[in-house]
Amino acid sequence: MAVYTEVSDDELARFVARYDIGSLLSFKGIAEGVENTNYLVHTTGGTFILTLYEKRVAVEDLPFFLGLMDHLSARGVTCPLPVRDTSDQMLNQLAGRSAALITFLEGVWPKRPKVAHCLELGKALARMHIAGEDFPARRANALGIQDWRPLFNKFSAKAEDLCPGLHDLIGEELRFLESSWPKDLPQGVIHADLFPDNVFFVDDKISGIIDFYFACNDALAYDIAVCLNAWCFDANSTFEPAKGDALLKGYDSVRRLSPPEHDAMPILARGAAMRFLLTRSYDWLNTPKDALVARKDPEDYIRRLKFHQSVQSISDYAKQLTS
Amino acid sequence: MAVYTEVSDDELARFVARYDIGSLLSFKGIAEGVENTNYLVHTTGGTFILTLYEKRVAVEDLPFFLGLMDHLSARGVTCPLPVRDTSDQMLNQLAGRSAALITFLEGVWPKRPKVAHCLELGKALARMHIAGEDFPARRANALGIQDWRPLFNKFSAKAEDLCPGLHDLIGEELRFLESSWPKDLPQGVIHADLFPDNVFFVDDKISGIIDFYFACNDALAYDIAVCLNAWCFDANSTFEPAKGDALLKGYDSVRRLSPPEHDAMPILARGAAMRFLLTRSYDWLNTPKDALVARKDPEDYIRRLKFHQSVQSISDYAKQLTS
Repeated sequence: MAVYTEVSDDELARFVARYDIGSLLSFKGIAEGVENTNYLVHTTGGTFILTLYEKRVAVEDLPFFLGLMDHLSARGVTCPLPVRDTSDQMLNQLAGRSAALITFLEGVWPKRPKVAHCLELGKALARMHIAGEDFPARRANALGIQDWRPLFNKFSAKAEDLCPGLHDLIGEELRFLESSWPKDLPQGVIHADLFPDNVFFVDDKISGIIDFYFACNDALAYDIAVCLNAWCFDANSTFEPAKGDALLKGYDSVRRLSPPEHDAMPILARGAAMRFLLTRSYDWLNTPKDALVARKDPEDYIRRLKFHQSVQSISDYAKQLTS
Repeated sequence: MAVYTEVSDDELARFVARYDIGSLLSFKGIAEGVENTNYLVHTTGGTFILTLYEKRVAVEDLPFFLGLMDHLSARGVTCPLPVRDTSDQMLNQLAGRSAALITFLEGVWPKRPKVAHCLELGKALARMHIAGEDFPARRANALGIQDWRPLFNKFSAKAEDLCPGLHDLIGEELRFLESSWPKDLPQGVIHADLFPDNVFFVDDKISGIIDFYFACNDALAYDIAVCLNAWCFDANSTFEPAKGDALLKGYDSVRRLSPPEHDAMPILARGAAMRFLLTRSYDWLNTPKDALVARKDPEDYIRRLKFHQSVQSISDYAKQLTS
């Protein structure tokens, strides 16, 4: 939760005047979003989210992210639509930051996802993957397998302070992942960070998918593996089979998973657990205890990783999925 | 800026169901408000602010604050209206806190108030004072003159660390204020904290007055003195005569100031400067540098106090005001 950049009423009124959305009625800084500053803006033309991009987002990636939202939104995916100003631009400057105005989506994210949420999520993820097929821009995954070892090297000397045994756990797992990572899976645009706080529901139906600031080109099934980690474990990091089952069946009902994707699911799930274990460990060691942004305990992802290491096949995630 | 208390989607949906405002569509924590946690809530019935009262607000005072908003709103003052639940209650419990749902007011607060804003403010303040005349509940000013010396005693030993000369400045001024403070001025319900961030404008007209959590019974003219300090000095803490003039004339055009109120304005302005100098000094010394809440520099109020000490009469604030 953070508002890193303050915007004055006069500045914002001038900014809003560049768009064909009426005049400014109100704006409130939102205590959400770890990476960027967000304001909820009411104008006589509607309700919008104003995002000011802070230093953790690379400015050169913004056209990819905004273009993707524009592309997906035009294909019926309920994601925020970047509003174009009167010069047809989606990206502008405000208070010394790159800034975009996007449509506001109603909905609340589920703090404790239920099986029904996971089923809807699976379907929506598959629809998003299909809608992204003809998106022409490309962006490499900046937190893909090739980035994990360099990230580990940044904190490996302190890994044991975080948790005894963590150094060897990560080291050995990285060796396994690097030697066995699948390379020929169907590729496409993935969200890559589809945690519950990025998916809004109204009446148990998905009303919005937000926060495309990790989106990239990678194996589509890796996106499912991220969701398995993010949605299908309980508060004690114990896997919940009914949720995994719902997620995978929901997905498969819209975009049929191929046999190689079936085979790869356990290693993809291990990789996804590794990716979040690494970033959370690094952030835990490098974020002051009293920072504005809450640190997330890496322990949850140690438990997830160990679970995935015990998995034999995709049928441990979804019982009756047939290839 | 702060969200001190997290609320889950399920908790909030159950809370909203107690009110006749439709079902929950979305909610966002707002990065505003120093004392309490605020969420902006959309339901199928409208837009609301949900406030969770944190420890700095005395629970026993909440019926006064909410009752006052209800009273003023019914008399045409554009302030938030506390929504009553289906049991006719304005105050409920949520996430272990006292909580109220109030109507959302459009508008933005002026970061750099203009003369026109001060004129509107003066009129609105007078209308609020008149509308409060028949409000039956009473609350003493918890930061009135009798509270200033005890507050100073809490940090007087450290006053010189804050600013050389501050100890004697406050000590001597308190002696003057305590010996000369006017006691027979017209009394009523005052806002007591009417800073620019508590007054919303749309198209240079006041659309809302918010944050009644310092409201109390005291001299009406003291409320004007607070506004003189809060609205009528520039960024260098230099008095801006055109703004003082607009504020006082706006007020006087709606509720005629009496001769004793004219005479008392300079000492009331000194008192108001002292009240904010004391709380800011105390907070500066007692708030960690890295806290969620921004500390406000007491220096601004040292300069204001010194200006008011040089004032001879109300005509130094408003040139042609006639009694």
